[in-house]
Parts: sequence; structure tokens; C-alpha cells
Amino acid sequence: MPMPLNPEQQAEIDAMRAASTPTRRACAPALEEILYQAIPVLDHGFIRVVDYMGDDGAIVQAARVSYGRGTRRVSEDKGLIAYLMRHRHTTPFEMCEIKYHVKLPIFVARQWIRHRTANVNEYSARYSILDKEFYVPAPDQLSSQSSDNRQGRGNVLQGVEAARVHELLRDDANRAYDHYMELLNENEDGARRDPARDGLARELARMNLTLNYYTQWYWKTDLYNLLRFLGLRADSHAQYEIRVYAEAMIDTLKLWVPLAHAAFMEYEHGGVRLSATALESVKRMIAGEKIGQAESGLSKREWRELMTVLELES
Amino acid sequence: MPMPLNPEQQAEIDAMRAASTPTRRACAPALEEILYQAIPVLDHGFIRVVDYMGDDGAIVQAARVSYGRGTRRVSEDKGLIAYLMRHRHTTPFEMCEIKYHVKLPIFVARQWIRHRTANVNEYSARYSILDKEFYVPAPDQLSSQSSDNRQGRGNVLQGVEAARVHELLRDDANRAYDHYMELLNENEDGARRDPARDGLARELARMNLTLNYYTQWYWKTDLYNLLRFLGLRADSHAQYEIRVYAEAMIDTLKLWVPLAHAAFMEYEHGGVRLSATALESVKRMIAGEKIGQAESGLSKREWRELMTVLELES
Amino acid sequence: MPMPLNPEQQAEIDAMRAASTPTRRACAPALEEILYQAIPVLDHGFIRVVDYMGDDGAIVQAARVSYGRGTRRVSEDKGLIAYLMRHRHTTPFEMCEIKYHVKLPIFVARQWIRHRTANVNEYSARYSILDKEFYVPAPDQLSSQSSDNRQGRGNVLQGVEAARVHELLRDDANRAYDHYMELLNENEDGARRDPARDGLARELARMNLTLNYYTQWYWKTDLYNLLRFLGLRADSHAQYEIRVYAEAMIDTLKLWVPLAHAAFMEYEHGGVRLSATALESVKRMIAGEKIGQAESGLSKREWRELMTVLELES
Amino acid sequence: MPMPLNPEQQAEIDAMRAASTPTRRACAPALEEILYQAIPVLDHGFIRVVDYMGDDGAIVQAARVSYGRGTRRVSEDKGLIAYLMRHRHTTPFEMCEIKYHVKLPIFVARQWIRHRTANVNEYSARYSILDKEFYVPAPDQLSSQSSDNRQGRGNVLQGVEAARVHELLRDDANRAYDHYMELLNENEDGARRDPARDGLARELARMNLTLNYYTQWYWKTDLYNLLRFLGLRADSHAQYEIRVYAEAMIDTLKLWVPLAHAAFMEYEHGGVRLSATALESVKRMIAGEKIGQAESGLSKREWRELMTVLELES
Repeated sequence: MPMPLNPEQQAEIDAMRAASTPTRRACAPALEEILYQAIPVLDHGFIRVVDYMGDDGAIVQAARVSYGRGTRRVSEDKGLIAYLMRHRHTTPFEMCEIKYHVKLPIFVARQWIRHRTANVNEYSARYSILDKEFYVPAPDQLSSQSSDNRQGRGNVLQGVEAARVHELLRDDANRAYDHYMELLNENEDGARRDPARDGLARELARMNLTLNYYTQWYWKTDLYNLLRFLGLRADSHAQYEIRVYAEAMIDTLKLWVPLAHAAFMEYEHGGVRLSATALESVKRMIAGEKIGQAESGLSKREWRELMTVLELES
Repeated sequence: MPMPLNPEQQAEIDAMRAASTPTRRACAPALEEILYQAIPVLDHGFIRVVDYMGDDGAIVQAARVSYGRGTRRVSEDKGLIAYLMRHRHTTPFEMCEIKYHVKLPIFVARQWIRHRTANVNEYSARYSILDKEFYVPAPDQLSSQSSDNRQGRGNVLQGVEAARVHELLRDDANRAYDHYMELLNENEDGARRDPARDGLARELARMNLTLNYYTQWYWKTDLYNLLRFLGLRADSHAQYEIRVYAEAMIDTLKLWVPLAHAAFMEYEHGGVRLSATALESVKRMIAGEKIGQAESGLSKREWRELMTVLELES
Repeated sequence: MPMPLNPEQQAEIDAMRAASTPTRRACAPALEEILYQAIPVLDHGFIRVVDYMGDDGAIVQAARVSYGRGTRRVSEDKGLIAYLMRHRHTTPFEMCEIKYHVKLPIFVARQWIRHRTANVNEYSARYSILDKEFYVPAPDQLSSQSSDNRQGRGNVLQGVEAARVHELLRDDANRAYDHYMELLNENEDGARRDPARDGLARELARMNLTLNYYTQWYWKTDLYNLLRFLGLRADSHAQYEIRVYAEAMIDTLKLWVPLAHAAFMEYEHGGVRLSATALESVKRMIAGEKIGQAESGLSKREWRELMTVLELES
Repeated sequence: MPMPLNPEQQAEIDAMRAASTPTRRACAPALEEILYQAIPVLDHGFIRVVDYMGDDGAIVQAARVSYGRGTRRVSEDKGLIAYLMRHRHTTPFEMCEIKYHVKLPIFVARQWIRHRTANVNEYSARYSILDKEFYVPAPDQLSSQSSDNRQGRGNVLQGVEAARVHELLRDDANRAYDHYMELLNENEDGARRDPARDGLARELARMNLTLNYYTQWYWKTDLYNLLRFLGLRADSHAQYEIRVYAEAMIDTLKLWVPLAHAAFMEYEHGGVRLSATALESVKRMIAGEKIGQAESGLSKREWRELMTVLELES
């Protein structure tokens, strides 16, 4: 995997990591270990945690509206956090906050931004010039359209077709960027390319880039809304290109708030929802009844989904 | 200006406009007149109002938490709405809601979506195939980068340079779309292009399009947040390509809630903010003192901004 | 149940109901039937729908980002709405909006307002004088503290204790109001009580009222956030005094968007969530295994909750 | 001023303050100095900062989407922050977050909670028993209703009337609490008062308390929304009892983000807004014209407001 940072960027990060200040605030030591470090995602992207507020104890503290730490024994805190998650007492989770710096393809950014309960500062192509970095799917992600799901992928493309896809994506992205620089009338070193021309305004020239170009932003959210984001985007129905970001973020979640992470995996990520009708079927199956889709009252699709959840043959 | 709708779309809109139902709800007759109609913006875009809730009376009604209409004489309602706007009593304005269907270039959509207090449903290129429609600036909008504002436009490009810009934008967008269809392995009529190939998944192929391609969405917000959006996006500092949408929306605002529109123009759109230091300068100028930037305590830039606001020479 | 409206209020409502205007907007005829009508809740409270935007078709329309109504056959719409609900595609539900006028005790309002994604205009006791109306629980709601749930009710109080509770609540509320008027130096008819006194400012005098006094507000939210509110507040764990409001609102939901209502009852209100560990137990039970809490890996409390869900003995 | 904490609470706070951990995160040393300390407000209330994220540098860093600290010279950072504030580039301010523990009268909490863009965990009177602490205005705040502003205070009450107000407020609050405990059937030490009685559920008994009783909550918000809260609640039109909280928070703002604080005081708290018509009058006055309300086009009320802003006689 190529390194997503240039030496100057890495040096800035190293300088941040080298400095340490005493604080009275709650700290998450395991998260401090990786603070500011870029965790590679896709071919040129990354996530890195650049700040956080609170830890597992802050959830407990807020739930108890306490004067001190609020925590008791670890087992009690764990039980309380699990209880809060299970019973959808969401507000104590809002008391923790995390800030990521993310580099991601524009088409992924467009999905991501639909989660509105977050704070975002994106690198502005009105002010600045974007780097020549674009996403091309790895060979094992070059998939055809799913035949049974209008929003999904089917088989991985092979041979000539795969090669042609790669060629088209690369050529178009490269050409778009060359023309972007020509429109701007700038060279890579920032010098004016043709002194006789003015160059097109940045806010206009950017429109010539393709949607796989990388952008970057600072993205900050509270723990509750992070869990909702992860619940939807780490789900198997999410597009692969955003799911890998969500999965990398779940790793940082575990370092930050291990008890909330465990509760999330137990109740949300690993949990399931059953409809009223599906619950009836489950009760009958537990009672020993042999039922099929016809008897269940469920549609074929919902029956298949239930069989998948229960790991039974449909 | 080209018509942004095809005949089928126009027929669907006409059918909606032809139907009428009695309702007990508050109505805004002038807005009903244009309901569902596409108002062209840019070369292929539009806005159209597809639903609304409330009118000027609903603002008054909410401010008074009344059982009936809440309105009194028009002059009283006008005064109350102006008072609410002036004193930032924002919640009564939240009691009106409007829903637009908007067709807009992707790079404009990316600015727009930063306003988070709204509801959005965007046309999905994971499920569906985008149309071959992209934005190319009109000749009078083909501007160079501003020399004194990193986020703005300077002179309009001329002659050969302008022609070359148009050529590049058009060629790259056309090529990107042709390759998009090749990646999908589809013809314009939806038929499979090459039976020997699978075609790339839609959620991947879309990344080959350029940022000037049009997307569309349903966008719904309350009146207070609409006014904030318009205050920022109809401002002279906003990029032209989003400002024209905001201006078209201000026209619909006037039809919908004329009293709130008037208050907005008076206090927000046409009003100004003065800093503490600028206010001191204004007081001294009113007292007859001749002061320049040096005496004002303002930075050069802020002094220039103040002179612009006061229509004085700096 | 006492009528929560005085004749003037009822007359204003009747006048609103009598008027009808043609509109091109989507209408929900069954909801129009009850528009503006006060539906009594508790001893002096009510909810009434005062405006709405959209219907079931608007959900479908937004999901399809269509030019026309977007709906097809009812069965298709029903299936799509169920699919959206099941797979947590929440944004199309945000395209419908509803506005209630609610009269409710202050302690209920304090729970309710914790749902932040809504627009609220409350009757202001800084400007106006509150009416002499306070909540006293009906005899069957006069419950003791639950012995096994720190946040719940136990047995209904009886006899002397119940009578004493009623007496205390009534006497204190009556006295607080009499003193409120004395502080304001006003009579019920608005006349000054004692010409020699100034009277305390309204914004201060209100602090002498007890938390069971009724307040009222306009409350507006989109359908998605309404369903979240109802999911939590119509739940059996919610306090009775807010649950009865949620239940009355579910009745209006059914009149407004019957397909979304049905999906809500099937997937949210009547559905259940199973944790990863509970799901494992369910699979084993379906396979015919006899397991108890010890084998399940669940805590005693979670096991009991699972047995309740499955209607089995724990 | 009485101390708002009991010895156990103070000990918990002292223990938090005594601990220190090294962190790689941005720190605000001046704010660390007062972290966790209770700052008294009103007769029994307080605010205390219990956590924070970011500093002035974090605003700059986000505005630049930088890899390192993002800050340059202090003067440059100051200029950038002022520029962002002046031009309503609000998102970089959202990158800082602060969490307060606040103890406040219920009627103040009800105003406060109307600011919805914040995270809140309130002490629950469904689970727990409230302390016997209620607010009584100091003699200099015992004001009559304003005669020219329906939402304001007039003269301070004197002599017999003031004494009677104090007596009523105290007596009713004391009685309400005694009856609250009787309803609960509990003594101050938590013991059951009358073994023959069950006691009313906590979620019901609380309704007997008056609105001047103190509650407490954890309240967390980002810097942008904090500034909006302070802009409205530290304003001279805000009710005194919430304004004193806002003013105490402004002091903590200065310790946390001194550059943002300075920009806030210059552009928001100390700045003014002029309507389009008021701006015209100002221009004419600067040009030496003598104009009165009649010539200005402003209403009498707006003219008076303008004269106040300009410190001129109306």
C-alpha cells in the first residue's frame, strides 16, 4: 500500500506526536498511542484521530451527573454502559467527542456527508489546488453490478474487461487533471504556465476533475452519532469504499472507549432486529413447529432475510 | 436557455398541476400558482417548489401559540414579523416548511449540502444511471482567478483562452460520459452493449464522471434555516453557480411568505453588521469628525469594508 | 373527561375547520377530517394537528426523486415503504412534516423537549399569565415507586394514602396559583389587585408555580423524528404521563400516513432487537437445545428480558 | 454567597483537580487552571467546566485542514480568527467543544434547553430525589413588570411588598418540598417515614415542586453554538437569571480560546446590526444631514433603537 503522506506532512505529524502536555482532563491512553498517526485506507486515503474528549468514564459520569469521575468498579461501569446501549439511553454517549482528519475520494465524501450530525471542515478547492491523487479500485474490488440487488456488486471482473476498466479510469483521471492544471494555467510547482493567459478561477476549474479524486476534511462528531454512522457504514450493505473507512474507525473506537465498543459490537453491530411477524415465526420455531415462508406471513424477501439471520436454509 | 425537462417529465408535472383538492390547511395562493413548475437555473438545472407548509400567518400563530389563525390586521402581522426578525426570535419562522426539487451540478451540490439543517433525498447513482447533462459556464461567467481574493473571480476570459476552456470542459465531460457507459456496458437505451462483458457496478462506474455533471435532489427545510441558507448563498461573496439558485429561491420566498420576505430583505439581505470598533468610527463620523483608517482602529481591510458599506471613498 | 377548551377557543377552532381552500399539494383526507380538533389527553391536556406536509406518496416520491407523484400501485408503495423502514433508509420519511398544538403539564414538557430535532414555540410566561390548570393523576395512576425498577411505578395507592396524596397535590397547586396572582398583583379578570403595589415581574412570579401546571406549545417535526419520538415515548418503559400523548399521536399517524404507520407498528413498535449473544441463544433454541440463563452467556437481567420477548418462562 | 457544594462534592472535585496525565492533545493552560472548579451563580447554582476539546489553534488548524498544528504567528492566527468570525465562516469554530456541569433553577433550565444544538444529561427526578435547594431573587432583583416592555423588568420592589414577595416564595417552596418528602414517604436520611405507607413514585412526586427548585445537568456544545447561546443569553434583553450564567461562561471562554473570545466581543457581543433603512439614515447623518424619525423611514421604535445604538438623543 502506498504511503498516503509526503515527507513534510509526516514531519508535521511527528512533531505533533513528540509534544506532550499535562492535563487534568480524562485521557484514553491507548488512543493517545496512535494520536495523529495516519491509518491508510484505500489506495491514497487515510483516517487519523486528531483530537478526542472523554472516555468510557465520561459516559458513566454523565449518566450519573456526578461531581467526580462517576465511575465505580469496572464491572459496574461495563454493566451500566451495556444497559444504556440496550435501552437506547443515547444521551450519555453524546458526552464523548472525537475528531478525525480523513482523506477520501469525492464520491465517498458525498455519501459520508449525508450524516448531518457532525462538524466538517473540508479542504477548499475554491482557495487551493487539489493534489493529483485519485482512487482506482484494487483488482479484487472491480466488481460487476449485482444481478439481484440494484444497489450492490456481483462478480469480480476478470482479464481483458478488468484491464480495460483500469485503463479507462486511469486515463480519464490523468487527463482530467492535466486539463485542470491547464485551465488554471499553473505548473505543478505553482508557477504560471503561460504568461499570456489569465487562467480559469479555481472555483471553476475544479469542475473538470472526476469523482474519484481525493479530498480531505476534518470531521468531528459525538460518540452516539459516531456509532450510528458506524452502524450504517460498517454494515455489509454499505458500499465497500466507505465500509473500509468505517472499519478502520471501529478499530480506533476500541482503543478509545473499550466498554462502549464492546456494547456496540454486542447490541448494534452484532445484534439484529426482528419485525413483529418475524418474532412470531421465531416463537413458533422455538416451540418446535416446522414452518416455511407460506406459514410465516412474511414476504419471500423477508423470509430469506430471517433465514440468513438465523443461519437456516430458506 | 434550453428546457431542462424532457416531455415525459413535463407531462408528469402538468398532471400534478392539473389536480386540486380542498384542504383546511393554510394556503399561499401565489405560491400555488407556480407549484411544481421548473424554474430554469444555469444551463440544465432548475428549482421547483414541490410542497410547503404554512404561510405568514403561521409565523404569527406560532409566536402567539394561538388556537385560531392568530393573525390580526395585516399591519400588525407585518410589524410582529419584522420585530421577530430584528430581535432574532427565530423559532416562529421554523414553523413554516418548504420542499424543493433541485437539479444542480455536483460541485454545487457539494457546497449546498454543507447546510446540515435540512432534509435531503438525492438521486442515487448506486441504483440508477445518470443522464448525460453537464454544466459549462456561459461566456460571461468564464472568469479568471481574482488577484486580491483567494476565493473569488477576476476578469472574464476572452478569445482564444475562453474558447480553449470551453473546449476542454466539453471534451472531458463528453469523454467521461462515454466511458461511463462503456464501463457500465450499457447503451443509451438501456440495452447491454457487449453481451460478452459483465459491466462495472454502477456504484463504481459513477466515479469516472466529472464534477460538473448534474445531479438532483429533494431538499426540504424550515423557513428559518432557508433564510440562513439564502443569507449566505445569495450574498455577493458566494460562488455565482450557487448564488443563482439562491436568487431563484428568493423569488419563490416572496410568493410564499411576502411579509417574512420583506423583513428578510430589510434586516438580513439588505442589512449590515458593524463591529464594536466600526460602530465607534460611525459615531465619530456622525459627530462630524474626519477620520481615516489610522484613527479608526480598524485594519486596512476592515476599513475598506466599512467604506464600502457606507458608500464612502476609502 | 373535562373539556380542555373554553368556548372562545372552541369557536376559533370551529372557524378554522369551517374554511376550505383548494390546493395542488398532496392531501391526507382522513387527517383533514380531524384537523385542528383537540384530542383530550390527561385531565386538562390535549393534542391537535394544526398542519401537515406530505402523505405516504411523498415518501415514495422522495425515495424515487421523481417528477410526478412517484407512486405506483398501492401494493408497490406499501412494499417500498416497508423496505425503507426495515433497512433504515430514513431520509424519505423526513420528507413529511407535521405540526401539533399540545397542552401538557410542565414536567411532561421537560421530558418531551429532550427530543431536539423538532421546532418548538412555547407559550411564554415571561409575556403572559398562565391559566389555573394543573394535573392531578387519576386514582388508577396514583402509584408507588417500583421495588425492582428505579425508574418505574409499582402498586396503585389506596384508601387514606391515596386521598392524602390527592389532597396535597391539589392544595399545593391551588395555593401556589393564588400566590402567583398575588405576586403579580392581578385579579383573574386582569385588573390590578392592589393599586398601591407594583406587582412582581411575570418572568419572576412564574417560578412559584408547581411542575404539574399546564403549559402549551406548537411542536413541529418530520415523520422520521416523529417515529423516533413515538418509538421511545409510546414504549412501555416511558412514564405514563408522556406515553398517553404518544399514543394519541400514533392514532393521528394512522390517519395521516397509513402505510408508514403499518410499517412502524411492524418493524419498530412491535419489533424487537436481539443482541449478538441473545441471537445465539435463539438459534440454539430453534435447533431444539434446552438452555437456561447459565448456558446462554446472558446476564440474569438480559435473560429475563429475552424470555419476556419470547413469551417463555424464565 | 453561600457555597453551592457540600463537603463530599468538594472532595470529589479536589480529587479530580489533583490528578494530571500527559496528553498529546491541544491544551488550554488557563482553562486547565480552573477545570472542575465550581463558579457560583445565583444563590445556589454554579457552572463548572468539566472537559474541553481544542483551543484557538484548533480553529486555525481546521480552517486550513492542516496536518500539523496549522498555526503560524499569533498575529496571523488572530487575523484569521477575526476574518472567520466577521465573514460568518462558522464551521472552524465547531471544531472546539466544551462541557459544563451546571446547577440552575428549573425555570432557567427551561429557557436554556431551547438551544437544541447541544448535548444534555440532566439529573433525573424519576430515579433520584432532588435536594432542598430553591432560588429566591436577591433584593436588588425583585423587580416589577416593565411598563413599556411586555418581556422585561421595571423598578425594584421595596419595603413591605418586597418582604411579602420573599415570604411567599420561601414559604411555598419550603412547603412544597416538605410535601414532596411526605408524598415519597421518605426522611431526609433516605429512611422510610411511615412503614405503613408505600409512598408515591418519584416520577410523580416531583410534580409538587415549584419551578425555582434547582436541577443540574451536564451540557456540552461546540464553540460556534456556544457563541450563539452567549450572543443571545448574555444580551441585555435576556432574563437576568440566565444572563448571569452566560456571563460566567464568557469568563471561561476567555480562558479557553482568548482569540475567539476577542473576536466574539468585537463582532458579536459588542457589534450591532443595522437594517437597510437604518443604514440609509446613518449614511445621511454622516453626510451632515439632520434627520429625525419622520425622515428616516423607520418606525418610532426602530428609530429609538437606532438612536440608542448611536448614543444620540431620540
